[in-house]
Amino acid sequence: MSTHPQLSTPHRCALIEIVGADNLLTNAADRWCYGYDNSRRQGVPLAVAFVTSTAQVQQLLSYCHAERLPVTARGAGTGTTGATVPESDGIVIAFQRMNQIITIDPANRLARVQPGVINAQLQQAVGLYGFFWPPDPTSSAVCTIGGNLAHNSAGPRAVKYGTPRDNTLGLTAVTGDGTVIRTGVMTTKGVVGYDLTRLMIGSEGTLALITEATLKLTPAPAARRTIQITYADIHAAAAAVAAIMAQPITPCALEFMDAAAIAMVREYSDLGIGAEVGALLMVEVDGAVECVDGAAAAVTAAAQVAGMLVARVATTADEVAALWKTRKALSPALRHVAPKKINEDVVVPVAQMAQFVERLAALGREWGIRIVTFGHAGNGNIHVNVLPAAEYEFARARECVSAIFNTVIELGGTLSGEHGVGIEKREFIDRELTPAAVEMMWKIKQQFDPRGILNCGKTLPMSEEMR
Amino acid sequence: MSTHPQLSTPHRCALIEIVGADNLLTNAADRWCYGYDNSRRQGVPLAVAFVTSTAQVQQLLSYCHAERLPVTARGAGTGTTGATVPESDGIVIAFQRMNQIITIDPANRLARVQPGVINAQLQQAVGLYGFFWPPDPTSSAVCTIGGNLAHNSAGPRAVKYGTPRDNTLGLTAVTGDGTVIRTGVMTTKGVVGYDLTRLMIGSEGTLALITEATLKLTPAPAARRTIQITYADIHAAAAAVAAIMAQPITPCALEFMDAAAIAMVREYSDLGIGAEVGALLMVEVDGAVECVDGAAAAVTAAAQVAGMLVARVATTADEVAALWKTRKALSPALRHVAPKKINEDVVVPVAQMAQFVERLAALGREWGIRIVTFGHAGNGNIHVNVLPAAEYEFARARECVSAIFNTVIELGGTLSGEHGVGIEKREFIDRELTPAAVEMMWKIKQQFDPRGILNCGKTLPMSEEMR
Repeated sequence: MSTHPQLSTPHRCALIEIVGADNLLTNAADRWCYGYDNSRRQGVPLAVAFVTSTAQVQQLLSYCHAERLPVTARGAGTGTTGATVPESDGIVIAFQRMNQIITIDPANRLARVQPGVINAQLQQAVGLYGFFWPPDPTSSAVCTIGGNLAHNSAGPRAVKYGTPRDNTLGLTAVTGDGTVIRTGVMTTKGVVGYDLTRLMIGSEGTLALITEATLKLTPAPAARRTIQITYADIHAAAAAVAAIMAQPITPCALEFMDAAAIAMVREYSDLGIGAEVGALLMVEVDGAVECVDGAAAAVTAAAQVAGMLVARVATTADEVAALWKTRKALSPALRHVAPKKINEDVVVPVAQMAQFVERLAALGREWGIRIVTFGHAGNGNIHVNVLPAAEYEFARARECVSAIFNTVIELGGTLSGEHGVGIEKREFIDRELTPAAVEMMWKIKQQFDPRGILNCGKTLPMSEEMR
Repeated sequence: MSTHPQLSTPHRCALIEIVGADNLLTNAADRWCYGYDNSRRQGVPLAVAFVTSTAQVQQLLSYCHAERLPVTARGAGTGTTGATVPESDGIVIAFQRMNQIITIDPANRLARVQPGVINAQLQQAVGLYGFFWPPDPTSSAVCTIGGNLAHNSAGPRAVKYGTPRDNTLGLTAVTGDGTVIRTGVMTTKGVVGYDLTRLMIGSEGTLALITEATLKLTPAPAARRTIQITYADIHAAAAAVAAIMAQPITPCALEFMDAAAIAMVREYSDLGIGAEVGALLMVEVDGAVECVDGAAAAVTAAAQVAGMLVARVATTADEVAALWKTRKALSPALRHVAPKKINEDVVVPVAQMAQFVERLAALGREWGIRIVTFGHAGNGNIHVNVLPAAEYEFARARECVSAIFNTVIELGGTLSGEHGVGIEKREFIDRELTPAAVEMMWKIKQQFDPRGILNCGKTLPMSEEMR
């Protein structure tokens, strides 16, 4: 590991001056641990600097701007696209020690937090006041609010409660030349100036580093009902999703699994789902105690399309846990079958889901590769798992993924619903974005980060960068 | 009127080439009619060009960019800030004839519309499918979707359903150099590239002209309950608002009127509200039929703070109409008393409302000017009406407004919740925005509109423009 480039002595002195020796890692083994995320890519930065204040981030970025030193921001490293994998000639700014909940203000339905706060810790803290913050990625037990904002990460509740862009009121951030910028408001309305808050959310650390966020809180619903509904095939399930989304009760979760996903789970755990089941929906509704049974009935009635088999409403906590067991058993099962699975979080319009799943099956046959789908059906956000059985299938799997992306675009969808672009999807997104939009994004990037030090090589299509 | 500058012959020929002679107004009397909005400011443009397609807007802006000809976009001219009042050396692009609803897609909960569609027409059209589009400005019978998007105009329902930024999926727009840009997605999730959609919404025609929008539709609730609650004073009402917003049932409207507002209405109509009433809340809840009574009860229970007088739930359409009569009688009554009333739509955090209203009363006494407040309490969005009794009070009223703005900023609020900045608030907003944020906004403006032809002299603080 000693072959990795080393931080120069002047750089080391300058960084220690800003964050202190205890907050700078320069040992190669330590640096290695801050060089990967859940994409399984690996980089090794020159150093890792732990920050605890906006002032430190401001000083670091001023210095890195002056020295043209690349910077990658990092929360918990749970992203799946390589967006936090650093350049070997740059540093990582790690936010995990900048983890204070500054204020919880129930009367104004907001919380002010530092970016290193863990999503689950925030939920617990605001839960004491009867609130929650809607974004709930699967990794909520470990992922940070800063990472959620950088990626606009959502999760199942987004179908009813929206994504971070819908649940953030304002930001403090530091741009690529070390300028502190404050955006947004403390209120749920505000139209003074341009919306820089949402521009920075989802920009994956390429425009500015978020050092504080004012989050909009939502009162926790008093009750919830969970319903598992089985279907003969995926077309019936897709028709049910469209019917559910066309009636007034919006579920707070609407997840689906295709036949291949159910078969996979069946191999690894006993879920009591018969062989006649070709697709499955998990639906949750929430609201006031006196409303949830009516809501569950309305959703179940909408879900009664031709091909529906059984709808089961859970009422006790144990029953709910049993129903979710099916869904939660899936990801480990998939990893077991195909450790190198490719999980793409594409989105298609809800009404096009049935057609999309049909075309996926055709693509699987054409490329001779197993494809398993599940995901957030209410948003049309489908996790397409392409499962190469062995190493030699990997290149073919990548080509199959490319064909899947073309299908998504044809159906009016988008290449990522919540994982983002990072490094993984960078070569594909100009299939979705028009050249004029990409050019405008690069121009905006240059205003925030004139020397291109923030997360180089991520997020925007490379075509334009080369101009 | 013949003294107004005239369009040069080459310009006239070029514009006729693009939109046709029938779609170009150059007569001074005609131009006058397209030179004002509800701010009562008046400009007279060189010409008014009616467009019907993105291609025409693209050609017009390419030409105006080449010729450095200023452009102001106009929907129905219902804005209150002068944002559609044109420069005398520029043209107006009028969108009222570009008014087609292109698609209503209930299965995907979206509608694609041209910018000249009237808000009420959209509501009627999507209502046939059981949906609505949440933004509902008071002017919804006449204002256009393009104007709603340009100003991020909301209305009472925003407290539950959000503003245009929360209810728009994607845009087609033409930037200041005539480039057509497509942004956003057709789905409720999407994280590919930067969020240019929300950046353009609320930018008041200074970044690009919107020529098509994909709007997110919401299923219409099956039932609604309207409650009128009276209080001994404004402090009790403000405490009730905070209590209502801290429990799980979010009303779909939460309006308030202070004692001065009630007194004013009492002078002009018989509302049966006793002299002991010092403040009034109008609350609406919506949802499934079996839920609204429970929701009304929950909200009414939360509203039962010390100082509450009477809560009346309306159940018939007539009763609802009677309750809203109080609220609707207000604006005409105010105009009657003070034709030159200054209506500012400031926002303060909900928990600071009582303090704000108290400080407003003190400012009214200090400046010797009558101040009446009402508005969207659930968002803290307060319409502060400063009522100069006569012409000679007008300068003093402006100074009083300036002091009110300082109070809003001190309390953590924002200077505009939904009317926007336009010309009216331009000189004030750098009290709210930091210099770094303003500088970034100007830099972004320059990327979209390199020659500054789009709505010159609006929206951003002038300080920076002069640099």
